[in-house]
Amino acid sequence: MNRQRLALRFKPYHLQLKNTFTLARSSRTTTPVMLTEMEYNGLTGYGEASMPPYLGESHETAAQFLSLLKLDQFNDPAQLENILDYVDGVAPGNCAAKASVDIALHDLLGKMMGQAWYQIWGYDRTLMPPTSFTIGLDTEAVVRQKLRDAAPYKILKVKLGRDNDREMIETIRSMTDLPICVDVNQGWSDRQQALDLIFWLKEHGVVLVEQPMPKTAIDDMAWLTQHSPLPTVADEALQRLEDVKKVHGVYSGINIKLMKCTGMREAHKIMTLAEALDLKVMMGCMTETSCGIAAAAQLSPRADWADLDGNLLITNDPFEGLKLIDGKIVLNNHPGIGIKPRDLSI
Amino acid sequence: MNRQRLALRFKPYHLQLKNTFTLARSSRTTTPVMLTEMEYNGLTGYGEASMPPYLGESHETAAQFLSLLKLDQFNDPAQLENILDYVDGVAPGNCAAKASVDIALHDLLGKMMGQAWYQIWGYDRTLMPPTSFTIGLDTEAVVRQKLRDAAPYKILKVKLGRDNDREMIETIRSMTDLPICVDVNQGWSDRQQALDLIFWLKEHGVVLVEQPMPKTAIDDMAWLTQHSPLPTVADEALQRLEDVKKVHGVYSGINIKLMKCTGMREAHKIMTLAEALDLKVMMGCMTETSCGIAAAAQLSPRADWADLDGNLLITNDPFEGLKLIDGKIVLNNHPGIGIKPRDLSI
Repeated sequence: MNRQRLALRFKPYHLQLKNTFTLARSSRTTTPVMLTEMEYNGLTGYGEASMPPYLGESHETAAQFLSLLKLDQFNDPAQLENILDYVDGVAPGNCAAKASVDIALHDLLGKMMGQAWYQIWGYDRTLMPPTSFTIGLDTEAVVRQKLRDAAPYKILKVKLGRDNDREMIETIRSMTDLPICVDVNQGWSDRQQALDLIFWLKEHGVVLVEQPMPKTAIDDMAWLTQHSPLPTVADEALQRLEDVKKVHGVYSGINIKLMKCTGMREAHKIMTLAEALDLKVMMGCMTETSCGIAAAAQLSPRADWADLDGNLLITNDPFEGLKLIDGKIVLNNHPGIGIKPRDLSI
Repeated sequence: MNRQRLALRFKPYHLQLKNTFTLARSSRTTTPVMLTEMEYNGLTGYGEASMPPYLGESHETAAQFLSLLKLDQFNDPAQLENILDYVDGVAPGNCAAKASVDIALHDLLGKMMGQAWYQIWGYDRTLMPPTSFTIGLDTEAVVRQKLRDAAPYKILKVKLGRDNDREMIETIRSMTDLPICVDVNQGWSDRQQALDLIFWLKEHGVVLVEQPMPKTAIDDMAWLTQHSPLPTVADEALQRLEDVKKVHGVYSGINIKLMKCTGMREAHKIMTLAEALDLKVMMGCMTETSCGIAAAAQLSPRADWADLDGNLLITNDPFEGLKLIDGKIVLNNHPGIGIKPRDLSI
């Protein structure tokens, strides 16, 4: 009988952002993450919790949550459902901290099986959608600089929802014809104005609109989706598996982020549910290391859109292994999620 | 570069039933199945299509469908989604024939990964529900004989829906106190009479009612489920993934059968969807060899009920490897679905 037990370690880390990151409601220059390692029988899986402050988790809450876990009760990592049901049940919330366990466990299990997760899930890695590169809200000069950084990409993501939406798009259109996804982060409040703007955006080469209105504006969003010439994508309106049925009929698609939904296990289930309900899927991210992005990328060959540039926006990525070619993440066939630490001393 | 190609073989076979199998609308002594083998790189996966005549498939339709498949276009069995999307798209219907490809591919892939599918899916095999043993509609003498055959089982399944429902249950209750699932196969037409009977059945130790009314009686079924003291389970009302949302709110649970839903891939997705929609899950079967039953059993640790006695009802099972201990299937940890042919010459 195998007497090995699962062992979890974690270490706080600060991501340094290349540019100040500006959303409709906040801005910042660093993101706290918790790096995790799951060890079993000489193999190590890597995970990560990325915790932008507006989501309510922090180094302190994550350390507290992870300290509660008694993973040494498990002697078979392949009992993924049992282990992650247990982790989810230890305390409510803590979705990013839970994801840091989930990702490390998946990485470990993939290594035990000798398979990358896209292979275990039966996906074709050549179907990876192009990764969108995010252009934050900023002055015209900064936007122009960011567009130069975005040169390798085939699709852009633009944050809208302040008072200069048309100006932002016109600035970008003066420099590039690339397709654009817009993310409004709940910034529009009037549905008719929103619809008028979406028609205008479509004429300017925008391909989808993410979270145009507040997540609580369900009736207005259903109306907007019904009339919109572009797909609408739920982000703030969708966190976990149980939310998928609530956005069905209200949005055209969903943005799945591992840090919202507790990780790869639930993200894979959400993707299955979306497929059954004819919802389109965007795989999204926070600012994250290559670890979190690689984990999300394993799922992305089955997604319609990949918004996985979080690791490109930081200067101190502690992992390597994620390749971007012609604007697409190219998954390698290394077992697990396909990354390794740059510095083995973490 | 790997130049190996997938190769599929198939062979018709007749299952000999131990007892004449009687449903509300038909009876028979054999079931036609198609046995399949998928070969790649020296490994072989086994599959099966079971085709009770009332479902519309036959040796002829299955051979015709399987002959259409050009699987040698695929050189990577791990592209499960691509391969099975292709198979599903070749022609409509043919769900059992499609399942015979799906099961063989899963068995092959599990062997390539060195893992049983319950392990790949992260399930705990010790959570397997007890297998229910089916007692068909018959004379009291035959029912008494069948009950003696059912001695090792912890739960019974009884076919109702003719004019002797109470008599059947009373006969069984005179001989055993085991819990009973009843399967009405759409046999009841009046919802109030159905409800009265369900209350009576509950008093007699029945634990669930499968497909009590016609699958088209949606409003009556929703009413019945709302008022029923026992869970109701959709069988004929649910075939594939797209049907799950239709039975949500109408039944308490669903009966997933690989032969209805094209196999393990879609069954796993249906199970995920059921979990998200709070539908209970029964894993069911046709009369099948140990191959089809083993494939369904891989999914069953996550199910609420296992109705997987199809292989116990036949006298010429060409496979072995499926163990039943104390009324539960005990999954082995052999890679794939865990069975092997008794006679290697098939």
